[in-house]
Amino acid sequence: MTTIDDLPIRDDLRGKSPYGAPQLDVAVRLNTNENSYPVPEDVVEAIGKAVQAELRDLNRYPDRDAVALRTELASYLGHGLSTTNVWAANGSNEVQQQLLQTFAGPGRKALGFGPSYSMHPLLAAGTGTEWIGALRDPDFGLDPARAVAEIEKHDPDVIFLCSPNNPTGTALDPAVVDAVLGAAKGMVIVDEAYTEFARPGTPSALTLLPEHPRLVVSRTMSKAFGFAGGRLGYLAADPAVVDAVQLVRLPYHLSSITQAAARAAVVHRDSLLVTVEAIKEQRDRIVTTLRSRGVKVADSDANFVLFATADDQKAVWQAFLDRGVLIRDVGLTGWLRVTAGTESETSAFLNAAEEILS
Amino acid sequence: MTTIDDLPIRDDLRGKSPYGAPQLDVAVRLNTNENSYPVPEDVVEAIGKAVQAELRDLNRYPDRDAVALRTELASYLGHGLSTTNVWAANGSNEVQQQLLQTFAGPGRKALGFGPSYSMHPLLAAGTGTEWIGALRDPDFGLDPARAVAEIEKHDPDVIFLCSPNNPTGTALDPAVVDAVLGAAKGMVIVDEAYTEFARPGTPSALTLLPEHPRLVVSRTMSKAFGFAGGRLGYLAADPAVVDAVQLVRLPYHLSSITQAAARAAVVHRDSLLVTVEAIKEQRDRIVTTLRSRGVKVADSDANFVLFATADDQKAVWQAFLDRGVLIRDVGLTGWLRVTAGTESETSAFLNAAEEILS
Repeated sequence: MTTIDDLPIRDDLRGKSPYGAPQLDVAVRLNTNENSYPVPEDVVEAIGKAVQAELRDLNRYPDRDAVALRTELASYLGHGLSTTNVWAANGSNEVQQQLLQTFAGPGRKALGFGPSYSMHPLLAAGTGTEWIGALRDPDFGLDPARAVAEIEKHDPDVIFLCSPNNPTGTALDPAVVDAVLGAAKGMVIVDEAYTEFARPGTPSALTLLPEHPRLVVSRTMSKAFGFAGGRLGYLAADPAVVDAVQLVRLPYHLSSITQAAARAAVVHRDSLLVTVEAIKEQRDRIVTTLRSRGVKVADSDANFVLFATADDQKAVWQAFLDRGVLIRDVGLTGWLRVTAGTESETSAFLNAAEEILS
Repeated sequence: MTTIDDLPIRDDLRGKSPYGAPQLDVAVRLNTNENSYPVPEDVVEAIGKAVQAELRDLNRYPDRDAVALRTELASYLGHGLSTTNVWAANGSNEVQQQLLQTFAGPGRKALGFGPSYSMHPLLAAGTGTEWIGALRDPDFGLDPARAVAEIEKHDPDVIFLCSPNNPTGTALDPAVVDAVLGAAKGMVIVDEAYTEFARPGTPSALTLLPEHPRLVVSRTMSKAFGFAGGRLGYLAADPAVVDAVQLVRLPYHLSSITQAAARAAVVHRDSLLVTVEAIKEQRDRIVTTLRSRGVKVADSDANFVLFATADDQKAVWQAFLDRGVLIRDVGLTGWLRVTAGTESETSAFLNAAEEILS
């Protein structure tokens, strides 16, 4: 039998494993930061209708520029943004891959501050970009002066910031984004996948766009919109950035169905985003409850919580799974990540935690 | 105003234009080799139902491995193939991009024989792969000895063959694929996007898979299946190739909706593929009619025809457009490409051709 080792794959891929959390059939799944609430009936109906209207014409290629969807996303974002500021793809992973293909790639460097979203270095590897893994502060914060020092030292072509940061949960101080934009000669991508869950008073990097043509804000419909299965990521930036990405995007990358379904979901955002407050409540409940039990917990502006484990986190992860609660080992020694789910899912997690962590 | 030139894009992208034919609102669109027949009512209904069943759970990520869809595609392909032999993505462009990321990329080379599918070199550029543009014979054929000589000269990591070849239309002699597989040390991708339209007796490279773990057959649902708007490309290969591609594929790249819609379409393939014979008839009608008028035409195993223009092909392309018929200038001096459409679309083309080409 032929194995991967017998094939002429790239040397830098040898021995690597595919990215992805285990997809296990467990009652309480709090491992991939999904929105635990199913799509509400009125939105199901609206998406169904929008998709149905496309089916007869699927023999034709989709609108290559996805104009109607981008227009609706711009309207959601506000901040004076319009269609030309927005670009969309099959998940924010594809958006970020396109950005690396345009602004990084062979002979160029991307820099991020770990622990952060683990796809960033993988996207760099997949596009032949050298990855520079700088570090956040020991408390998971990021001191502006230290961030600037790293940028001046490495002069990266692309810088990833993540706010709120996955897997630690905390949003960046706007002073950090400002400082990074001041020091960077390359592109600065602020990954705001979880921004809708941020605590009050946390500004989005969208506010900085008018002054910064090298700033890109990356967003997704997978989290607050509860649209993970629909695969829709997008970016907001100067129109020149959107033009530049056209040079590498695969033609007709977004299907007619995806465009129609995502557009209907954004149009019905009021129905979808109503879950955000409920999720934030459960998140705050996790933080408060674990802290009241003496567990160390990172501040969270996201729909998940990073908490410390006294014992080996792999064993603790397994103990939760044994109790029917699937959470995430993000590979950070002594820490685990749990998604804030529905009230009953959160109770299941907290009950298991009481047994396991005490 | 900021322009692309003000941004730190890759040097090799400077001055380039995005890939893509003009999307013009013209009555007769025969420029992108779409299937001119809308999706039939029974298939619209089946896809609608399949999609509807996914909508409530769009808050959850899709099956990362798209097992149900791949199983159905394997059943369609036959040749003893099963789920582990098949991989799917958002169009065959994404499939081929993943193959280049796995087996080519920075420091490696891909080779193709032009004129051929113009995305192959663009996919190479987008993945940092050096592109070697070898040439087909002047009659658009490919002599096995010459193909082998090019491979021995360049020792490419990935070789693209295209059968039936786009934009010339002819399928490859199996002797060529055999010879290339014998000479190649790297991967051999046979792009069979148009294979369902081949003239009787044209074998698919699928027959060679059992003996060749470095062979990949690339397919699409955009043409014969009339599913261009649904964006579904796939490959068949040794299971080790499918394993290898997992190392670079973006996690959850195929939405739940795409998986369900494509699967329903493949299940209802009998209804969809019924258009293939009608399209082949119109293709043969174009070939026969143009030849009877003294126009030079390439043999075609596809749903399109490449024909010679006495005058500058840009002017001839415009003359067709002026008569409401959109065809394709593929950048081949003295040639134009037309898709075989419905009977009335084909008549519109042939009537315009009578005025323009005589």
